[in-house]
Amino acid sequence: MIIVMRGDVTPQSEAVAEVVRTAARYQGVETQVRTIEGATRSLTEVYLLGSTAAVPKEPFEEMTGVERVIRVRAKYRAIGRHEGEAVEVGFAYNGVQFGQDTFHLMPGLCAVDSRHSVEATFKVLQGLGIATTRAGAYKPRTSPYDFQGHGKACLPYVFELAGKYGIRVIAMEVTHESHVAEILEALEASGNATGVMLQIGTRNAQNFELLKAVGQQSLPVLYKRGMGITLDESLNACEYIASSGNHRIMFCLRGMKTNLGDPHRNFVDFAHVPVVRRLTRLPVCVDPSHAVGKRFVGPDGLEDIHQVAAQGVIAGANAVLADMHPNPAEALCDGPQALLPSQVEHFVRDMQLVRKAYLDRVELRRRMLG
Amino acid sequence: MIIVMRGDVTPQSEAVAEVVRTAARYQGVETQVRTIEGATRSLTEVYLLGSTAAVPKEPFEEMTGVERVIRVRAKYRAIGRHEGEAVEVGFAYNGVQFGQDTFHLMPGLCAVDSRHSVEATFKVLQGLGIATTRAGAYKPRTSPYDFQGHGKACLPYVFELAGKYGIRVIAMEVTHESHVAEILEALEASGNATGVMLQIGTRNAQNFELLKAVGQQSLPVLYKRGMGITLDESLNACEYIASSGNHRIMFCLRGMKTNLGDPHRNFVDFAHVPVVRRLTRLPVCVDPSHAVGKRFVGPDGLEDIHQVAAQGVIAGANAVLADMHPNPAEALCDGPQALLPSQVEHFVRDMQLVRKAYLDRVELRRRMLG
Amino acid sequence: MIIVMRGDVTPQSEAVAEVVRTAARYQGVETQVRTIEGATRSLTEVYLLGSTAAVPKEPFEEMTGVERVIRVRAKYRAIGRHEGEAVEVGFAYNGVQFGQDTFHLMPGLCAVDSRHSVEATFKVLQGLGIATTRAGAYKPRTSPYDFQGHGKACLPYVFELAGKYGIRVIAMEVTHESHVAEILEALEASGNATGVMLQIGTRNAQNFELLKAVGQQSLPVLYKRGMGITLDESLNACEYIASSGNHRIMFCLRGMKTNLGDPHRNFVDFAHVPVVRRLTRLPVCVDPSHAVGKRFVGPDGLEDIHQVAAQGVIAGANAVLADMHPNPAEALCDGPQALLPSQVEHFVRDMQLVRKAYLDRVELRRRMLG
Amino acid sequence: MIIVMRGDVTPQSEAVAEVVRTAARYQGVETQVRTIEGATRSLTEVYLLGSTAAVPKEPFEEMTGVERVIRVRAKYRAIGRHEGEAVEVGFAYNGVQFGQDTFHLMPGLCAVDSRHSVEATFKVLQGLGIATTRAGAYKPRTSPYDFQGHGKACLPYVFELAGKYGIRVIAMEVTHESHVAEILEALEASGNATGVMLQIGTRNAQNFELLKAVGQQSLPVLYKRGMGITLDESLNACEYIASSGNHRIMFCLRGMKTNLGDPHRNFVDFAHVPVVRRLTRLPVCVDPSHAVGKRFVGPDGLEDIHQVAAQGVIAGANAVLADMHPNPAEALCDGPQALLPSQVEHFVRDMQLVRKAYLDRVELRRRMLG
Repeated sequence: MIIVMRGDVTPQSEAVAEVVRTAARYQGVETQVRTIEGATRSLTEVYLLGSTAAVPKEPFEEMTGVERVIRVRAKYRAIGRHEGEAVEVGFAYNGVQFGQDTFHLMPGLCAVDSRHSVEATFKVLQGLGIATTRAGAYKPRTSPYDFQGHGKACLPYVFELAGKYGIRVIAMEVTHESHVAEILEALEASGNATGVMLQIGTRNAQNFELLKAVGQQSLPVLYKRGMGITLDESLNACEYIASSGNHRIMFCLRGMKTNLGDPHRNFVDFAHVPVVRRLTRLPVCVDPSHAVGKRFVGPDGLEDIHQVAAQGVIAGANAVLADMHPNPAEALCDGPQALLPSQVEHFVRDMQLVRKAYLDRVELRRRMLG
Repeated sequence: MIIVMRGDVTPQSEAVAEVVRTAARYQGVETQVRTIEGATRSLTEVYLLGSTAAVPKEPFEEMTGVERVIRVRAKYRAIGRHEGEAVEVGFAYNGVQFGQDTFHLMPGLCAVDSRHSVEATFKVLQGLGIATTRAGAYKPRTSPYDFQGHGKACLPYVFELAGKYGIRVIAMEVTHESHVAEILEALEASGNATGVMLQIGTRNAQNFELLKAVGQQSLPVLYKRGMGITLDESLNACEYIASSGNHRIMFCLRGMKTNLGDPHRNFVDFAHVPVVRRLTRLPVCVDPSHAVGKRFVGPDGLEDIHQVAAQGVIAGANAVLADMHPNPAEALCDGPQALLPSQVEHFVRDMQLVRKAYLDRVELRRRMLG
Repeated sequence: MIIVMRGDVTPQSEAVAEVVRTAARYQGVETQVRTIEGATRSLTEVYLLGSTAAVPKEPFEEMTGVERVIRVRAKYRAIGRHEGEAVEVGFAYNGVQFGQDTFHLMPGLCAVDSRHSVEATFKVLQGLGIATTRAGAYKPRTSPYDFQGHGKACLPYVFELAGKYGIRVIAMEVTHESHVAEILEALEASGNATGVMLQIGTRNAQNFELLKAVGQQSLPVLYKRGMGITLDESLNACEYIASSGNHRIMFCLRGMKTNLGDPHRNFVDFAHVPVVRRLTRLPVCVDPSHAVGKRFVGPDGLEDIHQVAAQGVIAGANAVLADMHPNPAEALCDGPQALLPSQVEHFVRDMQLVRKAYLDRVELRRRMLG
Repeated sequence: MIIVMRGDVTPQSEAVAEVVRTAARYQGVETQVRTIEGATRSLTEVYLLGSTAAVPKEPFEEMTGVERVIRVRAKYRAIGRHEGEAVEVGFAYNGVQFGQDTFHLMPGLCAVDSRHSVEATFKVLQGLGIATTRAGAYKPRTSPYDFQGHGKACLPYVFELAGKYGIRVIAMEVTHESHVAEILEALEASGNATGVMLQIGTRNAQNFELLKAVGQQSLPVLYKRGMGITLDESLNACEYIASSGNHRIMFCLRGMKTNLGDPHRNFVDFAHVPVVRRLTRLPVCVDPSHAVGKRFVGPDGLEDIHQVAAQGVIAGANAVLADMHPNPAEALCDGPQALLPSQVEHFVRDMQLVRKAYLDRVELRRRMLG
């Protein structure tokens, strides 16, 4: 059961304390007070967990500080769409709005390898008017003997250059809670012109302690679907983040490992774009570079990475990651799937064309079916 | 090794006999003479099978009846794209052209249940100017105790009504070679106004004897990818059809069974649209109805069946199957995924919008990257 | 609903006609009369299909020719274990008993390549006292350009040599109904000393027309589980055989294709041995050679093919196929997984040791838990 | 490249410093000094990582403190079997030996729910002479709203009771590095009579930071194979533990998630028992309770959990986990798969019978094939 407090109620208020005291009268019920940072205001909620089936709504609905009481029957209490709820979808961060109605392209470096690469990359993005990117500092690798990323050593120049070239948000994977502090420290040292969206990678998709840790801080989180688990399990993992207090989550599809997706690296799962948009309030991102894994050119001249990216966008995806590298042959990881700088402009235009077609589809449907 | 004869050479000619005699001099080499029905002409080819690595091209290239000698190194000898080959892609049938540049919508009945349903369906298609459809007479079912289709009993009225409403081509599954004769007989009895594209269903994807049988007759074949096998295995299965003499094949994607595609019935595999177009000369079809399996409505009002269909089309699919039914609640099989007649017009317009966006993407790429 | 007739009732009798007439009074009910060849007698049954929920048992139970009326609620009407049914499990064929209590080793040639190989193989088996084997004449192959087996050409010498060396039953794959006639003809020409158990291979696991065809003749059938389909789907496929009249079925596990079984060729599924024994009345066979696919030697000297075979047997498997070849390097297919003749004796002793341990386990359980 | 120091050389010695200095002369080479706790002695090794292909062995082989230089070509540097290496396999801990030649049964509580359950469980084990068990305090759960284990609160009574009933080693999952300190503290407070083998669960199978953390402490680690990843990826994950300094690893198979294992919860993967034993030096454990997930009784009276456990053991498994509970209906998690106390004795005898059969198989092979 979720007790949504009125807009002016703070977590420390007597109104919240009263809810908690009342809930404590019911056996087997625990309470958690949470603050949700929406795009334009913050909300305080009290979660009643445990044996809440026997708890009535009335005592809470009658309190003055309470706006609404939601009995949670559906899955995904914190991130889900629940009937009768007119919740805000999406969030603003560092001047950029992320939601189910927005659209962002996020080309960037899979792994930061040098100051030179970073600068070359950001310069291209600035030229194209793109302010959102990806950059990998902490790289989890299957083998302990492979390159693991430059870690915090590269953060100072990444953030300095981001500020210089007007990058507003950088998606950056973390694999340990200590990385968050390192990033916040480096951001502050750089003057905070740019912002970071923490990324949870596929290998940590069910590392619940890490999910709780990123749920207890305020940077937004790009959650990448776990590779061998169901969509439901990945959405429940996002519940760990959201139920810990952080609702600034973007959900990212990146393909699944099976024996049936070949010749692509992963079995592309972008048919789940509309599913995540329907089941949750989260904006949905796709990562065509990691899903496809290689550069394949079709008979119509379009590369598979473009084609599957277009498949995500035509069905309503809100963001597209894309690996690019000033010199793919020298990339320390995942070079073969990276776009060349000369290809990025075409990629951007192609995606914009498809985004427009998606919006036209929505309009067509409205006109024809009401 | 494939010896392509000149256009005027027939299988019974002395030119072909000479090729066969010459090939017979090499140990471990077998020959097969095949005729390929292209869209505008037919070709005779002699296939050299077995230990052909040691067979030189020159003796054949010097013969007057021979146009070209292709040493097959690549996979998919008969259906593949092979470097340096300027082969015709696609085929014409009953006045309709099918190829990698054409686009057809094929809404229709998953299973024919009554004359009434067929007529109601065809009437809707005629109203929308659609001349290609699907109609299931022979239905393979997981359990022997489920409805197995009306079989040949329904063919007379299906073909009669198709003629009446201007349907040119009906995709129709066969599960036994005897069905082909039944279909041909019924077509002839109906006056041959309409045509049939035989469908090989997913359960028979590696029923090689059936593939050889449909390879030895002249109706075109819609081959549906096998569900638990790799794309490579399915393409090799098409080689059975093509190497038996019938090159009029359309390849259809319909989703794969895994534990990871939920809540869709199958894991949608339309990211393979550009792959099949690149590896082979076959036009590619998608079947969103069977891939998704249910009617899910998204927050933007678009159903998942529309969304994944759009994903196929934006990446270049050449045809879209779609289940429709005048009264889905009464359908004998797969009702929950069928479009209502009132939705078909929107589906058609939506797909046309996306097809146009695909063509615009190809043009954009040509303009920007040459 | 199944109406089991008394032992002396034939399909053409008035008793059966009476059942059919009575059933016809109920709307939506169809009847099928079937004869089941058990080990010691044959049975006639009338199957009531369709809307049988409203059909009462009493009118049939009161008829003199009727022994029992079974209302089928559970799955697998024809092959399943149904509560309260004391059915015969297993069947006898050519002097050999196959059931859930019997145990057979079936080493043999994956593909017959020459008279010499066959004779060398049968001689080894005779020396070890083994009368059941496998021999592939019709080989379905992924590519049409690979060796497809010698087909009916090899049958005369296979059967002649089988008679000479005392082989009683040869498991032999068929991929087309015409192969059954070819086999029966060759068996008769050889004097019928040996017998054939038809094999349905994994690619034809849902080729329902072939299943019905082998269900309408009397040779026993070794059904190999389909590779990309669920166990339930494969058991339903066996229902096609059994509901067509042939209950002499042995179910064979041979591993599943996924990305997770590596380094074995398939993901070994022998944990399903007890499942099939519990859900159905069918004897269960395992095929370790195809499941593992290669010769791997463990630190304890035991090969993986032995190890997974032992896993099947310790859990109650009733038969073990095993590829052997007098000269694996020269085998035309699947050589790398074949046992050498010198290894066959050890394989046989190893399996017998494990079979004894399984029987000891059953006895231990009986003693301890009653 | 691994430089194995002589037995008397300590990490702080000049001999090690000399190796490190020499290695530093080669560009792109990093060194790590590691201590490996074997069963009877400890070893110091210097790992040369990075571009070691050009580094010669001779300079190191000539040093007096160096026993051996191993150029690592094969996979699994730290845990693998490498040709020509006569390494010790296994380790001793708290008086118990774990290796590829030992055999332990580890029945116990999936989740500790009460002091009463723990005492009842340990009493049963003591009565059967079993000193190794499992007990879950920290339980990762798919949903944040499910019971997450009693955590450190239950440790005091678990360890006190373990000491009382002579339990030597308890396998206990940790999901955060802080749990290790909590466990060590509680162990010390209880007097250290019992020991803990840390468990890494399937959801953290590629949580590399946690793997490195448990690699940098001295408690042994039970690593459970990740569910959606290949065996190779899981073995590489163990390399993270071992290359961080902790070689006391036991590898545990527990079934994989796919759509093909039904009706078992997971697709049982115990055919990989001999594979892990061949590729690595790690003892191998199986977890039949989680793999099967339910209590199914076969026609021979044996439950599937017993059957698949037997499949692991007959192929050489070194340990078997098994969920038991004094009152399964009241278990807070995974009750349906737990053995009743009355069944534990039969389980133990059954496994011992199968272990003996495995040893007989090894002996049979030795006698017959040498």
